Amino acid sequence: MKLIRFGNPGNEKPGILLNGQRKDLSHVFHDWDNTFFRNNGLEKLRSFLETGGTQLPDVEADARWASCVARPGKVLCIGLNYSDHAKESNMAIPAEPILFQKGANTVVGPYDPILIPRNSKKTDWEVELGVVMSKDARYLSTVKDAESYIAGYCISHDVSEREFQLERGGQWTKGKSCDNFNPLGPYLLTKDEIFNVHNLSMSLKVNGKRMQTGNTNAMIFDCHHLIHYLSQFMTLEAGDLINTGTPPGVGLGMDPQQFLREGDVVELSIDELGEQKQVCIPA
Amino acid sequence: MKLIRFGNPGNEKPGILLNGQRKDLSHVFHDWDNTFFRNNGLEKLRSFLETGGTQLPDVEADARWASCVARPGKVLCIGLNYSDHAKESNMAIPAEPILFQKGANTVVGPYDPILIPRNSKKTDWEVELGVVMSKDARYLSTVKDAESYIAGYCISHDVSEREFQLERGGQWTKGKSCDNFNPLGPYLLTKDEIFNVHNLSMSLKVNGKRMQTGNTNAMIFDCHHLIHYLSQFMTLEAGDLINTGTPPGVGLGMDPQQFLREGDVVELSIDELGEQKQVCIPA
Repeated sequence: MKLIRFGNPGNEKPGILLNGQRKDLSHVFHDWDNTFFRNNGLEKLRSFLETGGTQLPDVEADARWASCVARPGKVLCIGLNYSDHAKESNMAIPAEPILFQKGANTVVGPYDPILIPRNSKKTDWEVELGVVMSKDARYLSTVKDAESYIAGYCISHDVSEREFQLERGGQWTKGKSCDNFNPLGPYLLTKDEIFNVHNLSMSLKVNGKRMQTGNTNAMIFDCHHLIHYLSQFMTLEAGDLINTGTPPGVGLGMDPQQFLREGDVVELSIDELGEQKQVCIPA
Repeated sequence: MKLIRFGNPGNEKPGILLNGQRKDLSHVFHDWDNTFFRNNGLEKLRSFLETGGTQLPDVEADARWASCVARPGKVLCIGLNYSDHAKESNMAIPAEPILFQKGANTVVGPYDPILIPRNSKKTDWEVELGVVMSKDARYLSTVKDAESYIAGYCISHDVSEREFQLERGGQWTKGKSCDNFNPLGPYLLTKDEIFNVHNLSMSLKVNGKRMQTGNTNAMIFDCHHLIHYLSQFMTLEAGDLINTGTPPGVGLGMDPQQFLREGDVVELSIDELGEQKQVCIPA
């Protein structure tokens, strides 16, 4: 299943992508949120679709694509999880996953604009595989257990302001939580429909030029390892989002460095997970 | 006004403290959450209380004290914001505020247990002044503007696992977001009832022994400065929580270092904001 959401900010509704068409499910489901996932919502949705739920109203063609799931309880991000990206950032390959957080209010739709923060000189791009949790995970016993806690996967754009992140004192958060810094979608692909999440090509273009090229097979810590690991520190809740790190090719790692400016167009894609496209505008 | 919440986890209800008695307001208000604050809820509450809302039902005496506001959209934390604490941590006094985040699901009631994480050796205490936002703040023009965006103040316990925070790779988040790591309350004191938020004594005891002694007058960046500053990076939303840093006396800074163990009792107090008390138990 491909879960989508649509509608203006603050009035998003849940829907589904069927044969490339957006269908409205807001008469049946409230939202793709914590409550939905934790109450076995994916199974209910599957049953609904299998038992006659095929005559669904279309979503209006010009309706905004919202983030594919509701605002998560938390957005956990893994740093330097592709060995080549660690290298381009002049940072050591981590011995265990590096964790940071973004504010959950950074999550927006896949075609919403990237807001270049005021006084920003170094707004940068990062295509990532996003993982959404289907139930609460706490102190998982084994890495193998992690699979059953995953709802699905989507493209997640971990937009970053490098000066705020690295040159303004202390922790990375400051350059990671600016408004609109986490476009998510266009859809959440449920995990049953993905053959091998650890062999997906990823790409990101700026103004038509390929900047990032990667494959999830180069992740240092794979999705299951990450969920098991994080669950040793905190409860991962249903609907939480994990951004699993970015492959090489970010602006920070280029020589000379290159960053996003007003009018730039960013396009992201991951095999099986569709495409995102954002225009950069001033905040 | 002193806003409280009560009831078991997942079923918390809003109330108020009147002359030391907990009163139930759940028949009038849904919760002390983002929706409440952003819709001018504090003014509505004030009007309600002034126009005959005095015959309120009591909260049952044995009802759990929940966090004084609903789970925030985000929990922003300021590091090293007391010069003496920076010194005891062997860290330089920051030139601008150091920001990190805790998962919002860490927020629990003021008397809930501290859960010592599994494999934790260094669970530590931090009494802090918590600030709750009353409306969305984005790119505030001046520090003076910040005052009107504050709902009120409360005690916030920024529990921290120092090994997870400092010795497990990368960012601080890992040692800050463990379950139950942010007891909040007992009540939110609305800002109109506090004479000078920047002159409040703070203390924390472990097993009856005073460990932290401080005063909010020693903050390097005061509450208004912090809100103005953070609003230059991201939108602070109504209901968001800012933990404004801790005074000296944490276990990490002691010689020899001392950390929390099963059975330890932690008591926190801040002038005008009441007291918290937690017992440490294994996660």
